[in-house]
Amino acid sequence: MSIAAAQVQNTSVITVPVPLGDRAYDILVGRGLIEVAGPRIAALGARAAAIVTDEHVGPLYAQALSQSLQANGLRSSVITLPPGEATKSYTSLERVCDAVLEAKIERGDLVVALGGGVIGDLAGFVAAIVRRGVRFVQVPTTLLSQVDSSVGGKTGINSRHGKNLVGAFHQPSLVLADTALLDTLPVREMRAGYAEVVKYGLIDDARFFAWCEANWHGIFNGDLERDEAVAQSCRSKAAVVVRDEHETGDRALLNLGHTFGHALERITRYDSARLVHGEGVAIGLNLAFRFSAALGLCAISDAERIEAHLAVVGLPTRLSHVPGGCGTVDELLDAMAQDKKVKGGSLTFILAKGIGQSFIAPGIEAEKVRAFLTGEINASRS
Amino acid sequence: MSIAAAQVQNTSVITVPVPLGDRAYDILVGRGLIEVAGPRIAALGARAAAIVTDEHVGPLYAQALSQSLQANGLRSSVITLPPGEATKSYTSLERVCDAVLEAKIERGDLVVALGGGVIGDLAGFVAAIVRRGVRFVQVPTTLLSQVDSSVGGKTGINSRHGKNLVGAFHQPSLVLADTALLDTLPVREMRAGYAEVVKYGLIDDARFFAWCEANWHGIFNGDLERDEAVAQSCRSKAAVVVRDEHETGDRALLNLGHTFGHALERITRYDSARLVHGEGVAIGLNLAFRFSAALGLCAISDAERIEAHLAVVGLPTRLSHVPGGCGTVDELLDAMAQDKKVKGGSLTFILAKGIGQSFIAPGIEAEKVRAFLTGEINASRS
Ligand SMILES: NC(=O)c1ccc[n+]([C@@H]2O[C@H](COP(=O)([O-])OP(=O)(O)OC[C@H]3O[C@@H](n4cnc5c(N)ncnc54)[C@H](O)[C@@H]3O)[C@@H](O)[C@H]2O)c1
Ligand SMILES: NC(=O)c1ccc[n+]([C@@H]2O[C@H](COP(=O)([O-])OP(=O)(O)OC[C@H]3O[C@@H](n4cnc5c(N)ncnc54)[C@H](O)[C@@H]3O)[C@@H](O)[C@H]2O)c1
Repeated sequence: MSIAAAQVQNTSVITVPVPLGDRAYDILVGRGLIEVAGPRIAALGARAAAIVTDEHVGPLYAQALSQSLQANGLRSSVITLPPGEATKSYTSLERVCDAVLEAKIERGDLVVALGGGVIGDLAGFVAAIVRRGVRFVQVPTTLLSQVDSSVGGKTGINSRHGKNLVGAFHQPSLVLADTALLDTLPVREMRAGYAEVVKYGLIDDARFFAWCEANWHGIFNGDLERDEAVAQSCRSKAAVVVRDEHETGDRALLNLGHTFGHALERITRYDSARLVHGEGVAIGLNLAFRFSAALGLCAISDAERIEAHLAVVGLPTRLSHVPGGCGTVDELLDAMAQDKKVKGGSLTFILAKGIGQSFIAPGIEAEKVRAFLTGEINASRS
Repeated sequence: MSIAAAQVQNTSVITVPVPLGDRAYDILVGRGLIEVAGPRIAALGARAAAIVTDEHVGPLYAQALSQSLQANGLRSSVITLPPGEATKSYTSLERVCDAVLEAKIERGDLVVALGGGVIGDLAGFVAAIVRRGVRFVQVPTTLLSQVDSSVGGKTGINSRHGKNLVGAFHQPSLVLADTALLDTLPVREMRAGYAEVVKYGLIDDARFFAWCEANWHGIFNGDLERDEAVAQSCRSKAAVVVRDEHETGDRALLNLGHTFGHALERITRYDSARLVHGEGVAIGLNLAFRFSAALGLCAISDAERIEAHLAVVGLPTRLSHVPGGCGTVDELLDAMAQDKKVKGGSLTFILAKGIGQSFIAPGIEAEKVRAFLTGEINASRS
């Protein structure tokens, strides 16, 4: 038995069920899961798997995964793509679809996404459309993908008209969140994913937020708290997804912090050197609570508490923290208007009455947003 | 009121419901329907429509369609592609997805496919994936697409590994089969579609086959029989699709004539100058019954009756009718083996006990197919 496999024996695996009727599946969370991926995936009854990964992740983990599959009678092949958001393109889509067909993946077989959200979104979309749909397994390797993108079945690529505009809802058959894989993740990516963890507490679980405040060290260090944080985040997201699989209502709560965050990503042109998604979300979370406070909905002390926690883990929280600047108020409003959450002159925001008390707020007048942002920008100047 | 609109008033519209639960929709069949597409499509509640068409069909009918939409308050734009099978490509997919996004089609809006099976398959696939799925309406303009491809929700494009290997199941919200549009269809395409009409009789409706024998003139001439033939074919296909939406069982019956037919298409390299799909199906239907007779399953007189009818409308029925030749027995068997209907040394065929009595026959030994094809090729030589 390998050391890692032995570790698995000692470590408990947490199972988070996602009860979506005939598309139900389990998320398994634990250290060293990749070493036992073989039996778990073989149990799904496929005979072959196409592993999709990127050039950072593949060299680290693809071999362990294929060996585990092979040891359990599954033929596998590895398709490796360049890392980065640019990989969520039509070109990669064609390349991966053809490679999956080349690998003779039939209707009963599988695509396995081994990587962060970029690989998960792309490989999931490929699985949705090759032979009009084959099954797929997520092996998320970033904190963000373990707690967010690998749960919920949203898959897709980017178009020149915007992010994630082409894709499908396609639920995985299994998610294996091996928290040991995060040991090699750059700390900046770790922090970015952590913003999404915090988000779940802020949406509807004040106790979880408090737990994060007390236990974030363990999460970053790879202690048992990491597994718990991932599992609890998956439970939160799964609960929302089960209520609203195709995003027609409640699922919008998951956008807490994202209206401001997406605007900042747009303004920084998705240049990850300046801002990665989770950093935009961190600033967005803080702004959502500050805006809620400005509207008299929640206490400013709640916003301050959130800001203090995000800052202590090293996340940006203010418009002034955007490297290269956050643009003018008009640019910010324009960028928000593109988020299709606008109707007439008013926007839909996710606001909060306090930590763990978020709600969908349609009909927020653009003027109120403008006044708030003007204040934020001026404050940062003085 | 325009002449065409007046005709609609005089002509009855046949409604064929496709009861697929929350994906249920109607197929409307009648002359001049395109003139009243506006109110029918507006009733679906969209505000905008992207019309996808090809260079043959667009100049003939796109204007009438957009005008009818505009008159009913729907903003529309037209996306025109080159005609032909090569249009079912990744390149067109990207082009049409981007054009649909450019046209600001939102989740509540529509894609309208105005064309034959090529446009229907491509535009339906685009609708399945733009913004993770928008609704779509089929306005099929070939007999084949009116009786076959626009019913059932299979959409997709071709890969270099084979036809229709990338796609989605995505049901339309409405099908408008305007039988007057077939007046401009080249007779060869008309005949090709007619092979699929005959197929429905051969599968499980001997009475319909007899009716075709008696009424084919009216179908080709554009008399009321055309509407009836289209409607009855849609009813037949819809019944099978409702039993087996995602093609895991019964739907295979629709492949009657297609195992041989696809092999011939492959051998003629999908060169439509040599053989179009429906011509391959016509030969395939005849061979399926001759093979059934050779296996002692049905009377040879049934095969002869089918051959006589296909021949009288001008369709090919024999391997020797393939322009440029049908290849050797080995080439034919190889081409069939690629149809993924092979398991071990045996193939799955759709065979028949008589006209209207087809059934799925797994486990037909390759040797029996070889013997049969050898006989057919030798017979054609003498
Ligand atoms: N589908 C959804 O519901 C959903 C939700 C949120 C975000 N997303 C998408 O997720 C994407 C972002 O995902 P991400 O943040 O995981 O980015 P990512 O996939 O680009 O990964 C970030 C970087 O970390 C590297 N990396 C990944 N795992 C590693 C590991 N274990 N060790 C070392 N390096 C590793 C990657 O190669 C990459 O360079 C975006 O495209 C976003 O749109 C999707
Ligand atoms: N989705 C399904 O279930 C399904 C079923 C069967 C076939 N198909 C697909 O359908 C395609 C074949 O469809 P098709 O036979 O309609 O071919 P097609 O779409 O290529 O049309 C045939 C030709 O007729 C022209 N044309 C179409 N309508 C016309 C009109 N009213 N007047 C004049 N010219 C017209 C077209 O421009 C084209 O040149 C294939 O790609 C096949 O794979 C799909």
